[in-house]
Amino acid sequence: MSQFAHRDGELLVNGWPLRRLAERVGRTPFYAYDRGLLRARAAELRAALPAAVKLHYAMKANPMPALVALMAQLVDGIDVASAGELQVALDAGADPREISFAGPGKREAELRQAVAAGVLVNVESARELRQLAGITQALGLPARVAVRVNPDFELKGSGMRMGGGAKPFGIDAEVVPALLRELRPEGLAFEGFHLFAGSQNLKAEAICEAQRLSYELALRLAEHAPAPVRSLNLGGGFGIPYFPGEQRLDIGPIADNLRALAERAARELPQAALVLELGRYLVGEAGIYVARVLERKVSRGQVFLVTDGGLHHHLSASGNFGQVLRKNYPVAIGTRMDAPATDSVSVVGPLCTPLDLLAERMALPEAGEGDLVVVFQSGAYGATASPQGFLGHPECVEVLV
Amino acid sequence: MSQFAHRDGELLVNGWPLRRLAERVGRTPFYAYDRGLLRARAAELRAALPAAVKLHYAMKANPMPALVALMAQLVDGIDVASAGELQVALDAGADPREISFAGPGKREAELRQAVAAGVLVNVESARELRQLAGITQALGLPARVAVRVNPDFELKGSGMRMGGGAKPFGIDAEVVPALLRELRPEGLAFEGFHLFAGSQNLKAEAICEAQRLSYELALRLAEHAPAPVRSLNLGGGFGIPYFPGEQRLDIGPIADNLRALAERAARELPQAALVLELGRYLVGEAGIYVARVLERKVSRGQVFLVTDGGLHHHLSASGNFGQVLRKNYPVAIGTRMDAPATDSVSVVGPLCTPLDLLAERMALPEAGEGDLVVVFQSGAYGATASPQGFLGHPECVEVLV
Repeated sequence: MSQFAHRDGELLVNGWPLRRLAERVGRTPFYAYDRGLLRARAAELRAALPAAVKLHYAMKANPMPALVALMAQLVDGIDVASAGELQVALDAGADPREISFAGPGKREAELRQAVAAGVLVNVESARELRQLAGITQALGLPARVAVRVNPDFELKGSGMRMGGGAKPFGIDAEVVPALLRELRPEGLAFEGFHLFAGSQNLKAEAICEAQRLSYELALRLAEHAPAPVRSLNLGGGFGIPYFPGEQRLDIGPIADNLRALAERAARELPQAALVLELGRYLVGEAGIYVARVLERKVSRGQVFLVTDGGLHHHLSASGNFGQVLRKNYPVAIGTRMDAPATDSVSVVGPLCTPLDLLAERMALPEAGEGDLVVVFQSGAYGATASPQGFLGHPECVEVLV
Repeated sequence: MSQFAHRDGELLVNGWPLRRLAERVGRTPFYAYDRGLLRARAAELRAALPAAVKLHYAMKANPMPALVALMAQLVDGIDVASAGELQVALDAGADPREISFAGPGKREAELRQAVAAGVLVNVESARELRQLAGITQALGLPARVAVRVNPDFELKGSGMRMGGGAKPFGIDAEVVPALLRELRPEGLAFEGFHLFAGSQNLKAEAICEAQRLSYELALRLAEHAPAPVRSLNLGGGFGIPYFPGEQRLDIGPIADNLRALAERAARELPQAALVLELGRYLVGEAGIYVARVLERKVSRGQVFLVTDGGLHHHLSASGNFGQVLRKNYPVAIGTRMDAPATDSVSVVGPLCTPLDLLAERMALPEAGEGDLVVVFQSGAYGATASPQGFLGHPECVEVLV
């Protein structure tokens, strides 16, 4: 992957040669996240997007505390998905006024923590509204709420669809007006809308269309709102390339589209900030997973690199998390970056299951015991999206470099 | 599922009404494992199998320490897949002489722990053999080894195939004789063979055939062994029913087959104990996962029971762990066992992803806030096979009842 340089055959992570980094970490496997790449991605987006659009980090993609603390400096707000994530965001120094909390199954205790913290709650049901009203009373603090809307359209060509049709997420657009009428009598502080149509999309035009439709829908719903819209979260959905043939998302048309929407918003929703909520896109390409080759094993003519890393740390790369057809993530031998790919190998982990596969019959340089295998595009949905307790192996380390 | 009784509309877990059990646990979600069912399953197997066959528990299926301690009393040995599991097995009081350690990527430090503990190591490569020789020298303790053989056949109709063709598991049958010649000069204590052809199989005849072929292969390989075979682990593979239409495995023919093999072994490998290595079959049906309904939500005509439990605790039930097509695990409303299934509902968790689905459009009694949803067949590959850190929700509790 072109975002990582290499020197003398060794991959560099923010300037650190991989072997030295592994010695610094003290053990394998580990995830390494490159500060330089994280800063660069945020800066690129800033440069491309209109100034009026706020950039949020959806920390579900990667909640490593040190990384969240860095991201909190690079973006305008943090989106959390649980009280656990809220705690990390607050510890990281994020401004509670710029934290929002979404999730279809918020427990009452979590809602209470969110109101006490003073963050914006994206309300997803009448039940949450009722509980927030009680909490507002109990704490003497008006809950800050945005209404998460389940739109009547979906983000075409997404890895996952989170809007359109019957969904557990948000409130169906057609019943939002009735719900909005209940907000003020309950003492809740209405601040806006949250729409999230889908994720992991590589088609700029599909994202633009979803943003336009989201804006239009919010504009219609704003007529029923008990107060001016101050925050309009248009969701995210920006994908990154994982598999052969996938192209990086073209941000240009999306920036143009957001510029047009921001101009309309300045007239039509003059108090509203447009918010983009990005997780994977901000951090996914800045991270690698590093495992050490324990042995090069040949079974009936097929080469296996048996490593100390596997699906217990990186379920997504193993193809067992949401994928229908397993495909290889981009993988390299981080200690042999200059060598020709003369070997056809499967990279496997230490687990006693055929599911523990990091690469299948991939062309790689010939590697052996002690070499370091690198899985790229691993900055999002890695360590926390994996069953780290599986088979009793040690947890992986995460470092911000 | 018929193995769990119910009374006054409430599911019973080893006699405990579910609501009271939830109060005792103090929070949801949780896994509960029924001691009575664990004992009954082990006893049934004991009664059916010939006395000469040793029963081992493969603790990867469920490594909860209290459960492993119970299983250590019910079976003849424990099979571990890592040094972490070894630690739990030893703490549980398992006899090191009856512990065996398998896994394709054992680290040298793990091999050293295993030799120091005095357990049997199932050797899976020439690299492991070399390292074990060094450890034997360093510790002055002969490593106890069995050779894990990658057979030249596979277990037909298995959920997962771990033998036959090119595999990272074990040593290809055809190169085992050469490897056996190296054992004695290296000072290693040869004890036998380990063959594991596949798992999660519901066809008795396929299991019988794999056992016969495994026995025959081991018998041929024994001619090259440096010492008599004392342990012949024929693997496991016994499945349990998860999905509609699946029938429980018929143990009768397998017991008959093992009886015949045990009679042959008494003549042909007189010092050998035959070992069955079962994980899921011993514990899978004795466990349930329990989550509380946060709300009954209707979106565009479809009913969602939004619960506090989900894929972060029970990835397998969500269909995201090894399954190609998602199917519903058996699910019930554990607090409405007598009510008719008049509702068509999807049971979802609190995570902000459409992957977080415990049941899809299933006929269930109408349930609401506070009801307890039960996922059956959850005693194996549950808590530790799930990404508990995902989205920062609390870890689940596990209780042995």
